[in-house]
Amino acid sequence: GPPLCPPESALSVSRPTRCHRLQDSLFSSDSGFNNYRGILNWCVVMLILSNARLFLENLIKYGILVDPIQVVSLFLKDPYSWPALCLVIVANVFAVAAFQVEKRLAGALTEQAGLLLHVLNLATILCFPAAVALLLESITPVGSVLALMVYTILFLKLFSYRDVNLWCRERRARAKAKAGEQLPGKANGGTAQRMVSYPDNLTYRDLYYFLFAPTLCYELNFPRSPRIRKRFLLRRLLEMLFLTQLQVGLIQQWMVPTIQNSMKPFKDMDYSRIIERLLKLAVPNHLIWLIFFYWFFHSCMNAVAELMQFGDREFYRDWWNSESVTYFWQNWNIPVHKWCLRHFYKPMLRRGSSKWVARTGVFFASAFFHEYLVSIPLHMFRLWAFTGMMAQIPLAWIVSRFFQGNYGNAAVWLTLIIGQPVAVLMYVHDYYVLHYEAPVVGA
Amino acid sequence: GPPLCPPESALSVSRPTRCHRLQDSLFSSDSGFNNYRGILNWCVVMLILSNARLFLENLIKYGILVDPIQVVSLFLKDPYSWPALCLVIVANVFAVAAFQVEKRLAGALTEQAGLLLHVLNLATILCFPAAVALLLESITPVGSVLALMVYTILFLKLFSYRDVNLWCRERRARAKAKAGEQLPGKANGGTAQRMVSYPDNLTYRDLYYFLFAPTLCYELNFPRSPRIRKRFLLRRLLEMLFLTQLQVGLIQQWMVPTIQNSMKPFKDMDYSRIIERLLKLAVPNHLIWLIFFYWFFHSCMNAVAELMQFGDREFYRDWWNSESVTYFWQNWNIPVHKWCLRHFYKPMLRRGSSKWVARTGVFFASAFFHEYLVSIPLHMFRLWAFTGMMAQIPLAWIVSRFFQGNYGNAAVWLTLIIGQPVAVLMYVHDYYVLHYEAPVVGA
Repeated sequence: GPPLCPPESALSVSRPTRCHRLQDSLFSSDSGFNNYRGILNWCVVMLILSNARLFLENLIKYGILVDPIQVVSLFLKDPYSWPALCLVIVANVFAVAAFQVEKRLAGALTEQAGLLLHVLNLATILCFPAAVALLLESITPVGSVLALMVYTILFLKLFSYRDVNLWCRERRARAKAKAGEQLPGKANGGTAQRMVSYPDNLTYRDLYYFLFAPTLCYELNFPRSPRIRKRFLLRRLLEMLFLTQLQVGLIQQWMVPTIQNSMKPFKDMDYSRIIERLLKLAVPNHLIWLIFFYWFFHSCMNAVAELMQFGDREFYRDWWNSESVTYFWQNWNIPVHKWCLRHFYKPMLRRGSSKWVARTGVFFASAFFHEYLVSIPLHMFRLWAFTGMMAQIPLAWIVSRFFQGNYGNAAVWLTLIIGQPVAVLMYVHDYYVLHYEAPVVGA
Repeated sequence: GPPLCPPESALSVSRPTRCHRLQDSLFSSDSGFNNYRGILNWCVVMLILSNARLFLENLIKYGILVDPIQVVSLFLKDPYSWPALCLVIVANVFAVAAFQVEKRLAGALTEQAGLLLHVLNLATILCFPAAVALLLESITPVGSVLALMVYTILFLKLFSYRDVNLWCRERRARAKAKAGEQLPGKANGGTAQRMVSYPDNLTYRDLYYFLFAPTLCYELNFPRSPRIRKRFLLRRLLEMLFLTQLQVGLIQQWMVPTIQNSMKPFKDMDYSRIIERLLKLAVPNHLIWLIFFYWFFHSCMNAVAELMQFGDREFYRDWWNSESVTYFWQNWNIPVHKWCLRHFYKPMLRRGSSKWVARTGVFFASAFFHEYLVSIPLHMFRLWAFTGMMAQIPLAWIVSRFFQGNYGNAAVWLTLIIGQPVAVLMYVHDYYVLHYEAPVVGA
């Protein structure tokens, strides 16, 4: 630090008579001081302490609510009937159907007939599980969400499968027209790996590699990692195990009681209490979402990729530094973002749509799938998820218009932290009214 | 951002068949990525939201508790008797006594007699208000804390006044011995300001300038600021006004109910609830301490300094970046630190004490004054404040031994955030037991 009494040394024989000098306080703007790095540590300590207290308060109030057995009941109503699993197994039929159409398209089938068959197949992939989930009594909401997710992923993957094979056929046709041109697979040579070119890719092995690979975009030659790193895989598997437990524990111990406590204010339309409950729910909800993000996009996807020696591990980018809503949506979920860009946004631009229309189209599709994955399992069509996704367009405009830099980043965090629990409370409230209120009125 | 599909441009006629490349996830250590600046914004947003919720919860639970009239009752029991103010006015007697002793020391009085008179005067300054506060029924705890603080400051100032005048006399004697040597006041010439040299400084004007100046260390020629900046002064005065309101409001609305709620767990010795209450109290206590710090060390002291054209505005340094407990104590309260260094630590070293003994001496003196300012107003001798200050020595050793850099900084914050409410709860609990428990047992 700077010396206290500049004119004299500490232990000189002549005693210090001068010990003040003309200077400004550090907080005065004239001082030019701006080293506040201690504040970050302060924030971290305060956050940990506040949440330690909430954790302790929760334990005192509710005791231990974590119950692994109860989790099973979310997936199964009857231990001898596994409708969600059956649905997932049936999904293979649609994958095989798409494969067979492609196999025939590579041969004698016309493009029009192939398109029709693909459209029929893809439409069935979305409608069949929805119908089963709506009509079957024995399926649980959680089970049907999982089954619908598998079907949605299958839909996106087969859509990409068809698109890429179509592009390959178009390229082959052009290459035949201009004979002597290089084949696309050999264009970036120099790699030791043997490149597969159309139609050699049309094998079950290749299809199932793609269906299990952690990507939604089909490619004839995926980049492959040289070997399975056993330590890396083990770490990811342990993370998967531990974080699953943690998420279940946090939901049972923290989310469920908070949501249950917020039903009464909602019934009474007591606005200050609704906001208080909303803010109380925001913390565990956000924490669980962050853990889920790491668990799914880092642990699970890397584990799968490591097992399959899938080389491209970019499952997320640095969305935590987002200074705009658009940047967040472009960077938090790269598999979906890549799919939207390659099979929806760019094809729309190529067909002459404006950028704005194409972007709105992407958000519309995303809103549709969000609603699809929530409404059907809950047997409840409220459009909250749809509205939430569509609201991102004006929100993105507002944030980019009024907030830049760190303020933009804080605004994105705020919409994440607050937006999600609003949607959660909306659905839970409506679900509660539908299932627990009506009978009381009837009685 | 980086391009999604490096090998081809977005809208080329040939459709993209390659869109993956070999790369690591950002969280993998191999990626070398470490840009997490968004996390600071996340911390800030989370802290604001958590506290907004606590604020709302508090308002719903207690309603508005802020009551400016009630504040007056803390200072006065009887509106026609102002014992604390009378005590403060009487303090002038001791200042004048010290001045008269110095005046005579500059003349014919011997050093021994002067020392005796000064010791008597300084001892009375500490004992007289303590006796009044203990014996007088009409004085309130808050009133007597304020009076004792004024007397403590007076004690430190007059101690410094005596020391500096003694040094000047010693220097004068040496200068007379070695005739022809320069006088100290003229040693650093070149300043346009007329320098005062001993014994011309011994005037009431000079004494009262020092007594009101925001420093505890006497100097014959304080650095002076050229003019009173009216805008600066107005801003500081507005800050003083607003932050006083805020502190009173936060104490009434947040601290008092939390402390009251923590009495029952303390009585029952319910440890998990005691910890929960402690953590709950830590947040408002820390916030109020931070506001107090800014209010006192920036607003008040700068306002006084501006009014008096006092030039040295270094009332605090960057303690928020402290990586050790020692650094914190050396930097958060510069007037007291300067006094301790100049009139306690360095004189002890000059007398041959080791650094370790001198430092322990400083903490011991500080512990004494902390206890003095708490025990006497509360009429309760528990040594919690004394123990708290003395505990800083082993604490400083532990923190510097086991934590460095940001971890050290976090450890300092933790001791600040947790240490203070522990002491507060200790005193409040004992005060509560003494004043509200005993009668019930007797009844």
